[in-house]
Amino acid sequence: VVKIAVDAMGGDTGPEVIVKGTIEAFQETRQDLVLVGDEKRLTPLLKDCSSISIQHASEIVEMDEKPSFAIRKKKDSSIVRAIQLLKEGKVDAVVTAGNTGACVAAATIYLKRIPGISSPALACPMPTPEGICLLLDVGASLDSKPVDLLQFAIMGDIYIRQIMKKESPSIGLLNIGEEKNKGNRLVKETYELLKKSGLNFAGNVEGRDIFSGKVDVAVCDGFTGNIILKSLEGLVGIIESTLKREIEKKLLYRLGALLSQGAYKVFKDRTSYASYGGAPLLGIKGYCIITHGATSAHAIKNSIIVAQQEVKTRINEKIENFICKKKFDKISY
Amino acid sequence: VVKIAVDAMGGDTGPEVIVKGTIEAFQETRQDLVLVGDEKRLTPLLKDCSSISIQHASEIVEMDEKPSFAIRKKKDSSIVRAIQLLKEGKVDAVVTAGNTGACVAAATIYLKRIPGISSPALACPMPTPEGICLLLDVGASLDSKPVDLLQFAIMGDIYIRQIMKKESPSIGLLNIGEEKNKGNRLVKETYELLKKSGLNFAGNVEGRDIFSGKVDVAVCDGFTGNIILKSLEGLVGIIESTLKREIEKKLLYRLGALLSQGAYKVFKDRTSYASYGGAPLLGIKGYCIITHGATSAHAIKNSIIVAQQEVKTRINEKIENFICKKKFDKISY
Repeated sequence: VVKIAVDAMGGDTGPEVIVKGTIEAFQETRQDLVLVGDEKRLTPLLKDCSSISIQHASEIVEMDEKPSFAIRKKKDSSIVRAIQLLKEGKVDAVVTAGNTGACVAAATIYLKRIPGISSPALACPMPTPEGICLLLDVGASLDSKPVDLLQFAIMGDIYIRQIMKKESPSIGLLNIGEEKNKGNRLVKETYELLKKSGLNFAGNVEGRDIFSGKVDVAVCDGFTGNIILKSLEGLVGIIESTLKREIEKKLLYRLGALLSQGAYKVFKDRTSYASYGGAPLLGIKGYCIITHGATSAHAIKNSIIVAQQEVKTRINEKIENFICKKKFDKISY
Repeated sequence: VVKIAVDAMGGDTGPEVIVKGTIEAFQETRQDLVLVGDEKRLTPLLKDCSSISIQHASEIVEMDEKPSFAIRKKKDSSIVRAIQLLKEGKVDAVVTAGNTGACVAAATIYLKRIPGISSPALACPMPTPEGICLLLDVGASLDSKPVDLLQFAIMGDIYIRQIMKKESPSIGLLNIGEEKNKGNRLVKETYELLKKSGLNFAGNVEGRDIFSGKVDVAVCDGFTGNIILKSLEGLVGIIESTLKREIEKKLLYRLGALLSQGAYKVFKDRTSYASYGGAPLLGIKGYCIITHGATSAHAIKNSIIVAQQEVKTRINEKIENFICKKKFDKISY
């Protein structure tokens, strides 16, 4: 049985949503689940489900706190407690909707990197017409080197093979154009590494290909990836608020929106990357999945299921074996 | 009277849309407008408006052609002809919906940079709740240095002052977090330059702030900006296609969509950056505005009006004066 700790206090939604998703995951998977957070708040929420245990944590890292500072100061926060359960081997994986930076910092500090991995990567599943494209890194690394991006590609490849059960995933290098000689120094050098990597390298892809279905994995440095991800969130935000404001203006529009809301719900679920079960943090000794702060019970449930698959397929072992075998640490960059 | 050349053949929509927008601009502004393109196709489209002249160009740079190669090969393309009219002083500005890379390449090769400017920048107006945020550079530069980003900020500041008539525009540095010490080497060094620049520097901003209205100008390197812009386009594409597919599924949804379509039209215009009149190419000796390839008559009209404002307010002179006065070329990076 896989044992998973769920940070019940992280995110913007409050523990109710997270507990609901955790209960749904338990009903579907019957895994051993631990909610980490304020016992007093969690106990009443769990009254129908005594099979899920609680690990008390008295503090919360807020969404706007400075990650590294918060991690050091709040030793009894739900995220630090959850990561420590993982470090001590009391659980096999952690799922959190909390402060992304704090989770990455806690995981990097307490769990350490997989031997041979030079930088961890946060991998975000993005919707495509027929499935997903795994975009990485979206913010676990900085000032990446070509070998880092090569390792991101390898980790993405292994993740798609194991979790999405897809053979020979196609890997794209995010660039400003498709021609071989495009881009800045980093991507030009990475291109050469990917070409001889033995991966199914599809060459350079552009920003729009994140959503086009052209590749299964899109690789970029963490600076670019983080800004892309937050820009996309910003656009979705302004689309939703503008649309809502316009619809409010006329009774006719409100009626129309009401009639067609079923279509919008499906569309929203489909294009919300949260519904794919959150972003796995790859390259760390231990399985962590970070969902969007404004998470849903559905996303929490899916994250727990993905975490379970990560543990069962032992993707970290596979990453370590691949990296050690190829001895990428000997490539000097 | 300001004289503006409009590339009639560029873009994905065909010359009909571009001619329509040009006629609308003429009716509103009575400026001297020249359509550049295939005379045989353009003459019948202009039958009601003899005041707009035509400059024949026999070739077209297609949207998927390699920019620098196409520019060298197709000397009689509408974009090259338009840029050459500008170089020869026969027009004051160029508006195009064509291949962005080809336009940037042609402008850089034939018109050259403004003295003191180390790199041109393509500036894209993005929608915010109350107005726009000018994002630059979205793809005219590569491997930017801190001084390039400082110059982007200066050009953005001058553009917002002159075109949007806003005093003391706030400038944000696009980064992965708001704290001062965040980011890669490039943005950390740029931060220090912006702090002592005398501009209204609002510090680091995140991707979502492109749309939040927090700043008037968001500065980033051309690699990051280009990938952001194309990712946003990709997301809008998948949102539209998914929504359309879902709505098609039920009569009820189709009816609802029909009733509320007025709200969607306003929302689409509002969030389409094309409606703000295209992206000015800043830092080049000559005024060029590049609109989205899938342009509308409305966007072409607005681009012509913005080009006219650029010429009348002489923003290039102001950029040159500012850069020379501050002697940024003496900062060694």
